[in-house]
Amino acid sequence: MSDKSTATIARLSTVDGAFHQHLDALLDWEGVSDKAVQARVEEILADVKRRGDSAVVEATNRFDRLSVESMEQLCLSPEQLKKAFDGLPTEQRNALSAAAERIKRYHERQKPSSWQYEEADGTVLGQKVTPLDRAGIYVPGGKAAYPSSVLMNAIPAHVAGVREIVMVVPTPDGVLNDLVLAAAHLAGVDYVFTIGGAQAIAALAYGTESIPRVDKIVGPGNIYVATAKRAVFGQVGIDMIAGPSEIMVVSDGQTDPDWLAMDLFSQAEHDEDAQAIFVSWKADHLDAVEASIERLLPTLEREDIARASLQRRGALILCQDQAEAIELINRIAPEHLELSVETPGDWLDDVRHAGAIFMGRHTSEALGDYCAGPNHVLPTSGTARFSSPLGVYDFQKRSSIIHCSPDGASELGKIASVLARGESLTAHARSAEYRIND
Amino acid sequence: MSDKSTATIARLSTVDGAFHQHLDALLDWEGVSDKAVQARVEEILADVKRRGDSAVVEATNRFDRLSVESMEQLCLSPEQLKKAFDGLPTEQRNALSAAAERIKRYHERQKPSSWQYEEADGTVLGQKVTPLDRAGIYVPGGKAAYPSSVLMNAIPAHVAGVREIVMVVPTPDGVLNDLVLAAAHLAGVDYVFTIGGAQAIAALAYGTESIPRVDKIVGPGNIYVATAKRAVFGQVGIDMIAGPSEIMVVSDGQTDPDWLAMDLFSQAEHDEDAQAIFVSWKADHLDAVEASIERLLPTLEREDIARASLQRRGALILCQDQAEAIELINRIAPEHLELSVETPGDWLDDVRHAGAIFMGRHTSEALGDYCAGPNHVLPTSGTARFSSPLGVYDFQKRSSIIHCSPDGASELGKIASVLARGESLTAHARSAEYRIND
Repeated sequence: MSDKSTATIARLSTVDGAFHQHLDALLDWEGVSDKAVQARVEEILADVKRRGDSAVVEATNRFDRLSVESMEQLCLSPEQLKKAFDGLPTEQRNALSAAAERIKRYHERQKPSSWQYEEADGTVLGQKVTPLDRAGIYVPGGKAAYPSSVLMNAIPAHVAGVREIVMVVPTPDGVLNDLVLAAAHLAGVDYVFTIGGAQAIAALAYGTESIPRVDKIVGPGNIYVATAKRAVFGQVGIDMIAGPSEIMVVSDGQTDPDWLAMDLFSQAEHDEDAQAIFVSWKADHLDAVEASIERLLPTLEREDIARASLQRRGALILCQDQAEAIELINRIAPEHLELSVETPGDWLDDVRHAGAIFMGRHTSEALGDYCAGPNHVLPTSGTARFSSPLGVYDFQKRSSIIHCSPDGASELGKIASVLARGESLTAHARSAEYRIND
Repeated sequence: MSDKSTATIARLSTVDGAFHQHLDALLDWEGVSDKAVQARVEEILADVKRRGDSAVVEATNRFDRLSVESMEQLCLSPEQLKKAFDGLPTEQRNALSAAAERIKRYHERQKPSSWQYEEADGTVLGQKVTPLDRAGIYVPGGKAAYPSSVLMNAIPAHVAGVREIVMVVPTPDGVLNDLVLAAAHLAGVDYVFTIGGAQAIAALAYGTESIPRVDKIVGPGNIYVATAKRAVFGQVGIDMIAGPSEIMVVSDGQTDPDWLAMDLFSQAEHDEDAQAIFVSWKADHLDAVEASIERLLPTLEREDIARASLQRRGALILCQDQAEAIELINRIAPEHLELSVETPGDWLDDVRHAGAIFMGRHTSEALGDYCAGPNHVLPTSGTARFSSPLGVYDFQKRSSIIHCSPDGASELGKIASVLARGESLTAHARSAEYRIND
């Protein structure tokens, strides 16, 4: 058992002298694309910018092995989306609708309000919140075409009040996923173009004859998509560049080891680079979880992927106590954190960095992936240190409001004049001084 | 006069057939760095990542023409910052303090709260707001060393509750700006390193022996700094890549043309690529503003820069009416918008895209640059379509909270199971199914 278990997932202990080195190596992830990918992507971007639709059609025929003649053939109508939804088996239709409803309800709570306040002299200051005019949602095609991602990316845009939501999803070899189209229908997507790759990102960023330019592009994709998004950043807004998915599970020893093993698998089955880390201060509990992993792994449909992920990037970590577990959480800043402990509320103040926090033994991460309500697009690779789940706030922006009364402008003018002259910006100073009452 | 005026600033009219083409050309701005800059920056980043302090010291000696031996000589203590503040002339000290106080007060209003709600079955959902651990503020050195930028970048971080604020500012030829150090003192900066360029960005992004790794880097810089920020994006958070500053002034014809000309100059004097655009539906008012420009331009200290900016990128635009002026605003999405009109409040609902809106004849943009309270770091080059002023929200991030009751987990588990199986992610499904009560 011991040999076999060593082969499946690494065991680490925080008291081991080389622990920090091991952990660093385990966490290390660079999603940077190589020069060849960059050059290829730049070529595609430039081509679409120059030639518009024709460039998109050619690239699509080539990369997705299609033979369409015009963009019209790559556009789906709202009716086609509705038809896909109506055609789903009842159970799937209901589950998708229930999930959409819960996601909507949660995101409604995220809507910020415009605000303003008036000062004694009548000057008004504030901030105005406005939705984006147009958002682009990238949805991967082929094996990674997930209807849940359509809901999670498009619903916040819809709740934010975005005027037009444009979705792109490639259909390699012409394969369309009805669940994806049904989800687009539910999420309030306005148009769908069946294109993907760097050519789709270019079309959304620059616009073509048929595809409207958007203000922001969100959604995951392969290395070509990620590289293209990074390149157009600034022309349009983008969400974070996502790395492989990760979960960190912390247990006090009282949760069923089979549940915990399956929670780790639910991350590991995503892809071979996904990361599942388990932490406890109970050595025998680590043994039990490891045994469950060994026993249950062969029962998985995606055993090979899950096994590769656990071998490459998984770990069972023995720590000293709760305080040390919290240190590990804040150091790793996991995308998903399960606090499988008796009183998770007691931990919350100390957890500074995590994309989503799943509290208690019953809250498996899978519930958050599909239907709890919060977004499943979360910061990966430690970026929870500085970024947030995708949300309504990603589809809105703020404008500052400044309305000075004559008296306010006069008083502020005196301050601005001194500071502007201190910076040798005398036109600034004079513009302020014109408004000073004498 | 007419020949001379044509030379200073372009006159456009929306009824002109080529208007939209002219406007596009005028707005066109690509801040993309060339291959040589990119290669140079990548080299510096890699060198600092590998050799830490020594690489930073060498690059600093080379680019800033210094001859220091260690990082210690490039670090300023809190005492030195305080000394710089105490040593300022009273008028400057008071103006800087008054500005800092107002900026703080405004940004306090931006602080979002954590929230949560409980569902009927006891499931709790919410969002937790946490400040970043450490923020890095880049402040340009030399001629563009602005104390107001220190306040505007560091105060939101301080108000957000960031634990440690690290500032970098290059000192070419050893020149230190006391106003900049004084502003750092006021704004709550914890450390200052006198380094700049790509080497400073690398040090903040990766950390060195002396310089702590930060979670986000904000602040403007030259093309090397902008390129380096783009390259480390993902490793750390960054703010927007700023383009040249712009102002758009809309007047109903009743504002003193000299005031308006000086408002345009206050942008044009920044640099030759800055953009100042004036819009009115009164032809004679455009004439008057143009005459003021011609008369006042020669009186400016920075006449050459302002003239070059107006010639290259400025415009006086005659439009048909208020509705068309609003169309222009939303198309241009200006960084700074002055609504120099009688009832600017009536315009507000229709203005969708602008970084900051200066309302009424008395609210000159310069007041916002220094002391009104809102941030002067604003989205440029039309990016107000999708981004916001720098704010407290840039120094905080959110974590989703999901705490399912046993009943809640059971009900959600049924939905998640159907959807996960629809995506062929059966470990997800089984992890949810374990929590279903029978």
